[in-house]
Amino acid sequence: MPGNILGENFKIVSFGESHGKCVGVIIEGCPAGLRVDLKKIQKEVDKRKPGQSVLTTQRKEKDKVEILSGIFNGITTGAPICLIVFNKDVDSSKYEIIKETPRPGHSDLTAFFKYKGFNDWRGGGRFSGRITLSYVMAGAIAKEILKKIKIEILAYTIQIGRIKAGKIINYKDIKANKEKTLVKCPDLKSAKRMENLILRMKKQGDSVGGIIECLVLNAPIGLGEPVFNSLESELSKAIFSIPAIKGIEFGAGFNAVKLKGSENNDQFFSRNGKIFTKTNNSGGILGGISNGMPIVFRVAVKPTPSIAKSQKTINLKTKKETFLRIEGRHDPCIVPRAVPVVESLSAIVLADLAISGGFIPRVLK
Amino acid sequence: MPGNILGENFKIVSFGESHGKCVGVIIEGCPAGLRVDLKKIQKEVDKRKPGQSVLTTQRKEKDKVEILSGIFNGITTGAPICLIVFNKDVDSSKYEIIKETPRPGHSDLTAFFKYKGFNDWRGGGRFSGRITLSYVMAGAIAKEILKKIKIEILAYTIQIGRIKAGKIINYKDIKANKEKTLVKCPDLKSAKRMENLILRMKKQGDSVGGIIECLVLNAPIGLGEPVFNSLESELSKAIFSIPAIKGIEFGAGFNAVKLKGSENNDQFFSRNGKIFTKTNNSGGILGGISNGMPIVFRVAVKPTPSIAKSQKTINLKTKKETFLRIEGRHDPCIVPRAVPVVESLSAIVLADLAISGGFIPRVLK
Amino acid sequence: MPGNILGENFKIVSFGESHGKCVGVIIEGCPAGLRVDLKKIQKEVDKRKPGQSVLTTQRKEKDKVEILSGIFNGITTGAPICLIVFNKDVDSSKYEIIKETPRPGHSDLTAFFKYKGFNDWRGGGRFSGRITLSYVMAGAIAKEILKKIKIEILAYTIQIGRIKAGKIINYKDIKANKEKTLVKCPDLKSAKRMENLILRMKKQGDSVGGIIECLVLNAPIGLGEPVFNSLESELSKAIFSIPAIKGIEFGAGFNAVKLKGSENNDQFFSRNGKIFTKTNNSGGILGGISNGMPIVFRVAVKPTPSIAKSQKTINLKTKKETFLRIEGRHDPCIVPRAVPVVESLSAIVLADLAISGGFIPRVLK
Amino acid sequence: MPGNILGENFKIVSFGESHGKCVGVIIEGCPAGLRVDLKKIQKEVDKRKPGQSVLTTQRKEKDKVEILSGIFNGITTGAPICLIVFNKDVDSSKYEIIKETPRPGHSDLTAFFKYKGFNDWRGGGRFSGRITLSYVMAGAIAKEILKKIKIEILAYTIQIGRIKAGKIINYKDIKANKEKTLVKCPDLKSAKRMENLILRMKKQGDSVGGIIECLVLNAPIGLGEPVFNSLESELSKAIFSIPAIKGIEFGAGFNAVKLKGSENNDQFFSRNGKIFTKTNNSGGILGGISNGMPIVFRVAVKPTPSIAKSQKTINLKTKKETFLRIEGRHDPCIVPRAVPVVESLSAIVLADLAISGGFIPRVLK
Repeated sequence: MPGNILGENFKIVSFGESHGKCVGVIIEGCPAGLRVDLKKIQKEVDKRKPGQSVLTTQRKEKDKVEILSGIFNGITTGAPICLIVFNKDVDSSKYEIIKETPRPGHSDLTAFFKYKGFNDWRGGGRFSGRITLSYVMAGAIAKEILKKIKIEILAYTIQIGRIKAGKIINYKDIKANKEKTLVKCPDLKSAKRMENLILRMKKQGDSVGGIIECLVLNAPIGLGEPVFNSLESELSKAIFSIPAIKGIEFGAGFNAVKLKGSENNDQFFSRNGKIFTKTNNSGGILGGISNGMPIVFRVAVKPTPSIAKSQKTINLKTKKETFLRIEGRHDPCIVPRAVPVVESLSAIVLADLAISGGFIPRVLK
Repeated sequence: MPGNILGENFKIVSFGESHGKCVGVIIEGCPAGLRVDLKKIQKEVDKRKPGQSVLTTQRKEKDKVEILSGIFNGITTGAPICLIVFNKDVDSSKYEIIKETPRPGHSDLTAFFKYKGFNDWRGGGRFSGRITLSYVMAGAIAKEILKKIKIEILAYTIQIGRIKAGKIINYKDIKANKEKTLVKCPDLKSAKRMENLILRMKKQGDSVGGIIECLVLNAPIGLGEPVFNSLESELSKAIFSIPAIKGIEFGAGFNAVKLKGSENNDQFFSRNGKIFTKTNNSGGILGGISNGMPIVFRVAVKPTPSIAKSQKTINLKTKKETFLRIEGRHDPCIVPRAVPVVESLSAIVLADLAISGGFIPRVLK
Repeated sequence: MPGNILGENFKIVSFGESHGKCVGVIIEGCPAGLRVDLKKIQKEVDKRKPGQSVLTTQRKEKDKVEILSGIFNGITTGAPICLIVFNKDVDSSKYEIIKETPRPGHSDLTAFFKYKGFNDWRGGGRFSGRITLSYVMAGAIAKEILKKIKIEILAYTIQIGRIKAGKIINYKDIKANKEKTLVKCPDLKSAKRMENLILRMKKQGDSVGGIIECLVLNAPIGLGEPVFNSLESELSKAIFSIPAIKGIEFGAGFNAVKLKGSENNDQFFSRNGKIFTKTNNSGGILGGISNGMPIVFRVAVKPTPSIAKSQKTINLKTKKETFLRIEGRHDPCIVPRAVPVVESLSAIVLADLAISGGFIPRVLK
Repeated sequence: MPGNILGENFKIVSFGESHGKCVGVIIEGCPAGLRVDLKKIQKEVDKRKPGQSVLTTQRKEKDKVEILSGIFNGITTGAPICLIVFNKDVDSSKYEIIKETPRPGHSDLTAFFKYKGFNDWRGGGRFSGRITLSYVMAGAIAKEILKKIKIEILAYTIQIGRIKAGKIINYKDIKANKEKTLVKCPDLKSAKRMENLILRMKKQGDSVGGIIECLVLNAPIGLGEPVFNSLESELSKAIFSIPAIKGIEFGAGFNAVKLKGSENNDQFFSRNGKIFTKTNNSGGILGGISNGMPIVFRVAVKPTPSIAKSQKTINLKTKKETFLRIEGRHDPCIVPRAVPVVESLSAIVLADLAISGGFIPRVLK
């Protein structure tokens, strides 16, 4: 259980470090016969790229994806696929300090103790948000697989700090609008306010968190392997491998607590021989298995722990208390860049469950 | 990925059905040399037993645990441990109806489609809350393992419907008081109000949900295997294998969204050479690894879907809409009985991480 | 990696001890919709039953199989199947001695050191040949799955001591004759000589080994997942979980070493649009994948280590050398009873590969 | 179960193709704190390099190893280690023909059917012996881990065709002599005859196989996790992932069949408080667990299937029989280059078992 492999019949193996040579991923179990367009992978990767806008870190990385194996003549072969990005704009000078004075809210302290100081601390090393780049590369492939059974995944920001997006129910609008905004929020008005909030935080040397909602459309009935590989189990496990995520809820989630059973139960209807529910408090999941309604979940993203303000910490050598001012290059709000990561991990989980459940064959035509 | 195995170096395999012959569990990877007292296992199992009080289902099960393998002279041998409870009070007559008319909010529909009607529908079969009995048996063993490194786990109710428990910070009080109440809430005053709410719901033929908080005390620094087997990943995966759970949050959780980084970060202090934080917004987890502070998480339990009120559903044969009144025997609120299940799964996950991380040897003395 | 689980998409979990309450198995991932006849399972189990003939141990066990879960109305449900045999004729008195004086050729010494004396030593505990009963129960289910794609498995004795069976090439004869003999050898003449050899060894208080050949007929092209889950990898891994197996070879095996490439290569022919080879030196496996020809392998079974003759050993407490005379009840040759075990494990491996490879659906009709 | 991952707590993930961009490996679970010398890895890789001598393929590859992740300042960090060799001397022109006319004795046919023609056929793609380069890179790391507990692994040729090495019992001689010969046989006289045989086969456009013996010295008592992860199970599974291996035997192996129990049992002795056996028919393994004696096994390597002689095959498009003359660049005997591969996989398996069994900590000092 060393921690860098996710999935069973569609597996990803993440490797690389923030300031090492590369960030890469192996995809094992990808069906043979899938046409792969490097441009599409690059497009997904570009969505989480640093330096995109005034809201994101100024680290300059082209994040150019290279295919090292598993694809021949533009088509998957059934062999493991290796995708890689070589790091270019590495500047570890600002991180020397964290070797001894761990950043509050970060993994510096726990990594130091777990690996007895052998961990690569440069830029957070293996604990950096940059590692999610490996998820996005693999997610791009997973999305192509899911397209074969019409599954579409859509994540977007619904809250930054205390600013909530207005109710949005039209999927087309979500899709059309979210990419128009820097914060990936489909409610354009709220998006503007969210941007301003983030810029304000940046100016203060502080940071802010938010909530991302994710929709999975057209999932067939039957995805999920209860009891321990339920849809909620697999999605939550994957999502919590994104740094900064501190909560997840499906359907009505924590709000279901306040409802009576008679209010929370989604009653069944039928239309044109298809079964559906008018409400979707279950988030499209019953007994850990997709029920044919949209799968819906929300994740809480904490404010970026890297802030410019002075914070109390301890010196690991002297064991004495001290103060730390983090310099480096950081996102004042990680939510917008986490949006494509949530989509990617969801795609990876669903591809695994779809393959395991027999919804997708080992060789595509 | 057929779904009935949890863990890696300390694994549990759940088997059995609600109205079948038994509910059982295999524990694989339990260190040899652990003294096991059947009475302690029974005591844990009794905490989730049906028929305990006016608040729970009236199904009468003694839930008498038997040891079938892996323990010799009261001590674990290193071989797989099989623990089993034979079902006694099985009455499937009330369930005939759900074969054709799936209960809203339940797995009946999805199980029917996934297994093409071959699933054991009696009492919900493999999807019943009764399956959590297997988790509690295994959890009792896991707790004994964790005691060897002083880890203690404490779950308790903090909300039923809209009734919230008052703030409780003293661990001793939590431990002392929670078992005094039928709802497992350590705030005795709120507990009484919660009980009344549940009884009211019962009378109405309706149900209610709630929130359980779980504390893990004395966890050493270093539990968790990022990126994909982080502490949050493993705990959430396990917890979502409990039916009715729809959300989980760690530390400040969804509330962290409203805080600035400077407010949410837990700054480090040192006392007597030990590092700690005054706040615990991280819930004791940094970078997916325990940081030595108490691990804290909360889970949202939806209102029991089985209610006496008439609900709309469809007939799976005729595909026509119809109405369903569920009879059977059900809990108007599953929260109190879910409390020991949350503890058990947490213990299982932590035992696995502790063994994988080298905190517990393969043979205990 | 605690060692009691085999397989991925069709998994078995073995539990129980030789002189404990039971020997059992969980089967996870068995397709739903498979009709299971308890009599067929019992029939398979009876083939390896002790006390069958003058050649086998005189321990008297009915080995009556019970179904504890996963089968409803005689059909698999998709839930984990638990099959169990409760031990009846347990007499551990003769084994007290091995606690301190390990039997040469047995696991007593290694188990003692690995588990620091906590292992259940009665009758060899978890290391007894009796554990293979769990493989046979699961194998009976696996064979039913394989029947759906016409795969048939046939193991039989081809050598006992230095006595070799004559060349047999007709599958029908193998099938018809092997069960007519106590040694499971389809060459009736050699079988008689083998029986006599075993009886002679028994009289001498000694034992003898042999070779089992296994044929898999009608396997489709495509079973096996190179590089690490090749057909040879998976079969050998499973087969070496039978106590007393010390070698395995596929097709021409060790004899291939003496051939030139031009002799060993099986050249391709076609007949009625089907590709085949006249020779089968590859044992039906190319590149770790079945090629449509019969899969053939042979396994070497060492002489039973439990013999009546006095042997040198050491006393674990005093660390002094001493002599041991094993009493208990033992098979003078384990080969005949290992034959159904080889078939069973082969069936389990092939079912797993067939399900993983998409040759068998998750739900059978 | 897509087939490219081996191990549990020390895992390797193999990727890359013979004529693709690279051959690589990820090592997951390597303890942190291990000093890694790239030169040592290179040295191991050089042992299996093509073009070494007149006996090997003339493909010219420098096989220069690069470290992409997991090592910082020359020391492992606990993060996944990626090692890679970029292919240089790729010439696929000679392989065009095998797309349609599969080579007898090769994976061409089975790969074509399994992946419906999408497999990368160039140079055998994923089925090439070149993939074992990934095992050797990982094996070099595994050997360094094993050194920490003094385990040493030594493989060498004991037979080529019908030419057998004389009996060799002195480990020092084996070590000293094997590398002096082109065939890796420590019996220098036999080695010369073996070389001549291989050269004769080369001249004839034919090939020859052989037997490799492998010794593991200084293994502690207790490696192996019965029943399914026994030492024999794990070693055999790994070894059969080398192309061309068709048999494996431990200790007396197939020869044990001819012995009586009283001859085959290794009786126990003690010397200076240490338990040992004079004979080692068990190959150092009792009950699937190492017993402190040297672990010994032998593997049968078939003659290289790629030969210059004309062979019968079929055309996959026309389904008609045809003849094939393989050109390309091949080894007339793969045995010498398989020797370091056997060592490497053994090291990988033992490192996994040693870590899983608690013999090696998660962080080395």
